[in-house]
Amino acid sequence: MSELIFVGMGLHDENDISLRGLEEVKKADFAFAELYTSFMKELRIGKLEKLARKKIKMVSRRMLEEENGEEILAAAQKGKTIFLVPGDPLVATTHVDLRINAEKIGVKTRIIHGASIITAAIGLSGLQNYKFGRSVTIPFTHNLHVSETPYAILKTNRKAGLHTLCFLDIKAEEKRYMTIKEALGILLEIEEKRRESIILGNTLVVGIARAGSKNPVVKSGMFHKVLNYDFGAPPQTLIFPGKLHFMEAEALTKLADAPESIKQLIR
Amino acid sequence: MSELIFVGMGLHDENDISLRGLEEVKKADFAFAELYTSFMKELRIGKLEKLARKKIKMVSRRMLEEENGEEILAAAQKGKTIFLVPGDPLVATTHVDLRINAEKIGVKTRIIHGASIITAAIGLSGLQNYKFGRSVTIPFTHNLHVSETPYAILKTNRKAGLHTLCFLDIKAEEKRYMTIKEALGILLEIEEKRRESIILGNTLVVGIARAGSKNPVVKSGMFHKVLNYDFGAPPQTLIFPGKLHFMEAEALTKLADAPESIKQLIR
Repeated sequence: MSELIFVGMGLHDENDISLRGLEEVKKADFAFAELYTSFMKELRIGKLEKLARKKIKMVSRRMLEEENGEEILAAAQKGKTIFLVPGDPLVATTHVDLRINAEKIGVKTRIIHGASIITAAIGLSGLQNYKFGRSVTIPFTHNLHVSETPYAILKTNRKAGLHTLCFLDIKAEEKRYMTIKEALGILLEIEEKRRESIILGNTLVVGIARAGSKNPVVKSGMFHKVLNYDFGAPPQTLIFPGKLHFMEAEALTKLADAPESIKQLIR
Repeated sequence: MSELIFVGMGLHDENDISLRGLEEVKKADFAFAELYTSFMKELRIGKLEKLARKKIKMVSRRMLEEENGEEILAAAQKGKTIFLVPGDPLVATTHVDLRINAEKIGVKTRIIHGASIITAAIGLSGLQNYKFGRSVTIPFTHNLHVSETPYAILKTNRKAGLHTLCFLDIKAEEKRYMTIKEALGILLEIEEKRRESIILGNTLVVGIARAGSKNPVVKSGMFHKVLNYDFGAPPQTLIFPGKLHFMEAEALTKLADAPESIKQLIR
């Protein structure tokens, strides 16, 4: 029966898939996976193939974007097809298009959700979900052009007292995964140009590395402390807190090693 | 070895736990679970106990909030203790406190993430993650007092062209799970008082029911159409889209049954 099921692989390795997700892969006629929208540090497709007793075909960005996922859609028209995606599939809207195209040709679609960096980062930071404003991605500099969007969004959220979750760009095909240090460097560059006092020496930052692993690192502190901190390997994420509730300050000092002085930021 | 591991159970039933999460429950000395922060429609703790071959003790809101999770902390000091939570644990900050208290008494803590309604709702709607502003919960009316916070946040996000994700209140002990109809009714009541034209007949709404189930319902349309639509059983969630990108309008019409007329909202 033709069907396309998007299965989220979660954050870290082949054990982050849900029981349901694995069952569906086992029962599938065809299975595909992409690993370019997020970096799952310890995922080895071979291990997932072993668990599922199923061959899984890797899909590149080009296959999805330039070929419109033709191969996946062709398979889905023939039988039950799984598309494995890091995190919670369809949050990165790049796959919404594939889902729409499947439905257009009469292929029923379904989602089996997985854990996402969005909620993992919020949970690890101890900050309150409803105090986050818009999220933003800090993109790699391209042809010397530095996108000022992250700075603008930081400014707007900050003005409203809200936290900003910043995803760090990745170019998986080139094995480039932006680090916290690089991201903070880019923001500093924009500050030096814009001079609107959004990034200062005492700007509070929370850096998160390898959420979903056995030993994630969550470190909070003033800008330069976090800039110079060794977070280890990617994937990495940043949060710029806005105004802090006293429980949030407690969480940052007790769970993210922030200095007691951040309590001045409580409103 | 004393340790407290927060394990996310995901959205729907015992099969939404990750492979890793289940392995950890199997290896635990003690296991606890709460089912009051979110409604997992088909979760039966007995089934999870069978899968994990482990007795799981249910925890009430009172045990966590009034007794400060004493029983869980006592267990965690004796051996490896699991605390099972719907969704991605620690996003509902009610448990951040428990984590801080554990660390304070020298108990190491860890998180095994699960799928959350936050990313599931975004993914199911086909809307773009970075266009969501602040989220808000629409609370049950208490002593005739209707909280106007959701209205205010809707207004702020709308002005900025951003989408608003609205969680609907639950009182699990009373088996009360707010429906989309009730939530929209509350917002209409606030509009009738405030008259700031935030909720109008042509206000676009997206209603989502039973995310994570085999047959979730995602229905988008003008306010009264969604108000009168039968979404079936809880859990339910609402999104108020802001300005639409043409791909978002495409997603809502093709995947959420929105009328073609919403294309006027594209900016």
